[in-house]
Amino acid sequence: MRAVDVIIKKRGGEPLTDAEISFFIEGFNRGEIPDYQAAAFAMAVFFKGMEPAETVSLTQAIVRSGHQLDLRDIAPVVADKHSTGGVGDKTTMVVAPLVAATGLPVGKMSGRGLGYFGGTVDKLETIPGFRAALSEEEFRQALAKVGLVVAGQSQDLAPADGKLYALRDVTGTVESLPLIASSIMSKKIAAGTNCIVLDVKYGKGAFMKNLEDATALAHAMVEIGHGVGRKVRAVLSSMEQPLGLAVGNSLEVKEAVETLQGRGPGDLVELALILGSQLLEMSGRSLNLTDARRKLEETLKSGAAFEKFKAFIAQQGGDISYLDDLSRFPLAAHREEFRSNRAGYIKSMDAETIGIAAYTLGAGRKVKTDAIDPAVGLILRKKVGDKVEVGDSLLEIHAQSQSQADSIKESLWQAYTFSDTPVQAPPLVDTII
Amino acid sequence: MRAVDVIIKKRGGEPLTDAEISFFIEGFNRGEIPDYQAAAFAMAVFFKGMEPAETVSLTQAIVRSGHQLDLRDIAPVVADKHSTGGVGDKTTMVVAPLVAATGLPVGKMSGRGLGYFGGTVDKLETIPGFRAALSEEEFRQALAKVGLVVAGQSQDLAPADGKLYALRDVTGTVESLPLIASSIMSKKIAAGTNCIVLDVKYGKGAFMKNLEDATALAHAMVEIGHGVGRKVRAVLSSMEQPLGLAVGNSLEVKEAVETLQGRGPGDLVELALILGSQLLEMSGRSLNLTDARRKLEETLKSGAAFEKFKAFIAQQGGDISYLDDLSRFPLAAHREEFRSNRAGYIKSMDAETIGIAAYTLGAGRKVKTDAIDPAVGLILRKKVGDKVEVGDSLLEIHAQSQSQADSIKESLWQAYTFSDTPVQAPPLVDTII
Repeated sequence: MRAVDVIIKKRGGEPLTDAEISFFIEGFNRGEIPDYQAAAFAMAVFFKGMEPAETVSLTQAIVRSGHQLDLRDIAPVVADKHSTGGVGDKTTMVVAPLVAATGLPVGKMSGRGLGYFGGTVDKLETIPGFRAALSEEEFRQALAKVGLVVAGQSQDLAPADGKLYALRDVTGTVESLPLIASSIMSKKIAAGTNCIVLDVKYGKGAFMKNLEDATALAHAMVEIGHGVGRKVRAVLSSMEQPLGLAVGNSLEVKEAVETLQGRGPGDLVELALILGSQLLEMSGRSLNLTDARRKLEETLKSGAAFEKFKAFIAQQGGDISYLDDLSRFPLAAHREEFRSNRAGYIKSMDAETIGIAAYTLGAGRKVKTDAIDPAVGLILRKKVGDKVEVGDSLLEIHAQSQSQADSIKESLWQAYTFSDTPVQAPPLVDTII
Repeated sequence: MRAVDVIIKKRGGEPLTDAEISFFIEGFNRGEIPDYQAAAFAMAVFFKGMEPAETVSLTQAIVRSGHQLDLRDIAPVVADKHSTGGVGDKTTMVVAPLVAATGLPVGKMSGRGLGYFGGTVDKLETIPGFRAALSEEEFRQALAKVGLVVAGQSQDLAPADGKLYALRDVTGTVESLPLIASSIMSKKIAAGTNCIVLDVKYGKGAFMKNLEDATALAHAMVEIGHGVGRKVRAVLSSMEQPLGLAVGNSLEVKEAVETLQGRGPGDLVELALILGSQLLEMSGRSLNLTDARRKLEETLKSGAAFEKFKAFIAQQGGDISYLDDLSRFPLAAHREEFRSNRAGYIKSMDAETIGIAAYTLGAGRKVKTDAIDPAVGLILRKKVGDKVEVGDSLLEIHAQSQSQADSIKESLWQAYTFSDTPVQAPPLVDTII
């Protein structure tokens, strides 16, 4: 078999066999198939796509490129939750302890955020002492002891994915559905969890800008999961406006804690309940979704979810005194309300523009080695559908200086549109696949 | 400007600017843009194509990657003839001396053959002493003195083409019309000739398998030529069956010599006259094509074309006693007639299958460093439309052993189809662009 023939076959739109895909990924991972052939292959996949069976083969080949965790000696079912990323998306910090507190273990490997999305690990690391870089043994121990663990992505799992992603990033081949789906699912599968809920976001602040593309990605990922014998469901949720009110790393941790204490914003609570219910029902811990939701609501109200969150943070070295007293988190030096110069109903607020504003303040990173500023960000005061008078605050800017705050105001104005007549808040969730 | 953005723009089907194409080719040629980005770029071009202006920009950027010859101090007009390659295509060895003998200088740089096509240089090198590796100064001197020179492709001209072609060859991006057209034309333009006839072949034995693709390639090349101010025409000629009767390196030299002596096969003579007439008319040496053809016919008949061929071979070190006595060329050890087992009219003979058979005997090379066997090949006894009786020879096999000859017979049978009713010979030339 020759790499060039595999490329030519895919270029012609023919489905590749499992043997061909394995040959290519294994050769690439070992450095025997050079980057230039992998780049041409990725571009051919961009144009010609892959059938479900090919995407399953691709995912399995990437999984086989490294070590695979087996968690079945710890628990027969371990849950995982993955989000394709969005502005203000702190859902993992709410769903994971909520589900774990009902007795369903949650083990999650999480990537770092690039661009204007901070990753869950970036957010958790704003709690002093918290450590996400766990060894496999530490990961297993934490899961066994607490029933909840969130670690950074291990370099030993699915190494071909990291190599392929780095290449795609510089060759214009990121935006390929089968490549995105196999990249995400290979890491989930290698991590050994067997009950996975995917939060696939669509809209201006998401990677997938429209519902159609997001739906196709969700189907592709669910098909991969089923193809390798895992329980998987995908929830298509809107990212037209940011989720919750906080955008920024420690600001989002504080909002997650408040939510676990029963004081969270409605959309965040609702999304956490929807995602958590899917996990409980899929795992067999609840007979149906109604039952699952009731159990989660009780767990939240009882304080058990917050207790689970604290136990998890403590297990990974975090100082839980910060969680009991949120005022201990350092605040950004310059805080300023951003006030409306007009009255009306908020018709839309562009999540992407708001995300870029927070990124500009220092909440995100351009390259992997950049440090993020934990304190900066935005606290929304109003969301789509809210009524606003002239002078009402639209959001609070948390910046390190007046000039830094000033630098984002022009673009923040661009994020809003208003209506003189009442506006319906957009739906939070479209479909569940 | 970033290479990845140029790739993404092309991936989206947008035309690139001259500045973007120059940036990419210059960066690639200097090694600043890595092979993996160039491979992704080439695959995007494969799928999205290029507009004529982009193809001109690409060609010019490749030309600028190296040295450019300027031949205007030797002659105001220097002619060149290029073929996209075919089985039994020895036309250059006939057209070039024929045209040069009328007084129009011909300067040609010729690539080596890969696959089952031997290149013109491979064929000429079967004449003992002939040397195609000329310095620029030797090329200019030969052109000035003899008015005819054929050299191997200089490494100094259009080096980015060699680099890009090597990459395309292993990344499944050879079959892209703008990349093929710019590759051919960049070498022609860098070589300094200003009156170019392109023999674009179509059919089973050609690189372009159908007339439609060949026509598109011809248009693209002519547009490039005009875009950079050269006189160019393309002749679309059929390669459904081999050209002439000889297939194999020294066998083809002998056929070319016989043609220059007025004893050539009809299709080869006709194609040489058509191509040569285009050059004479384009250069202004003849008022019209009828005039040009008459002049070429006279030149052929007078023996002047053969004399020019001998002067050219002598200038480049070749032993012309071989040309005056063709029996001096070594013959292959085993020669055998391949006889028909049925009667009828030859309906088709697959040039590709015949080319592969000659290649199997050793007439072609798999990789650049392979040696070719000058003596082996096939001499056709019949062509399409000819009437055959059982036992008539279809062709003569020139092999180095009985077993080598036997090894190709099965596939030779596959090359022929027969008809019980008379068959029209296929047209030699379709259109001239």
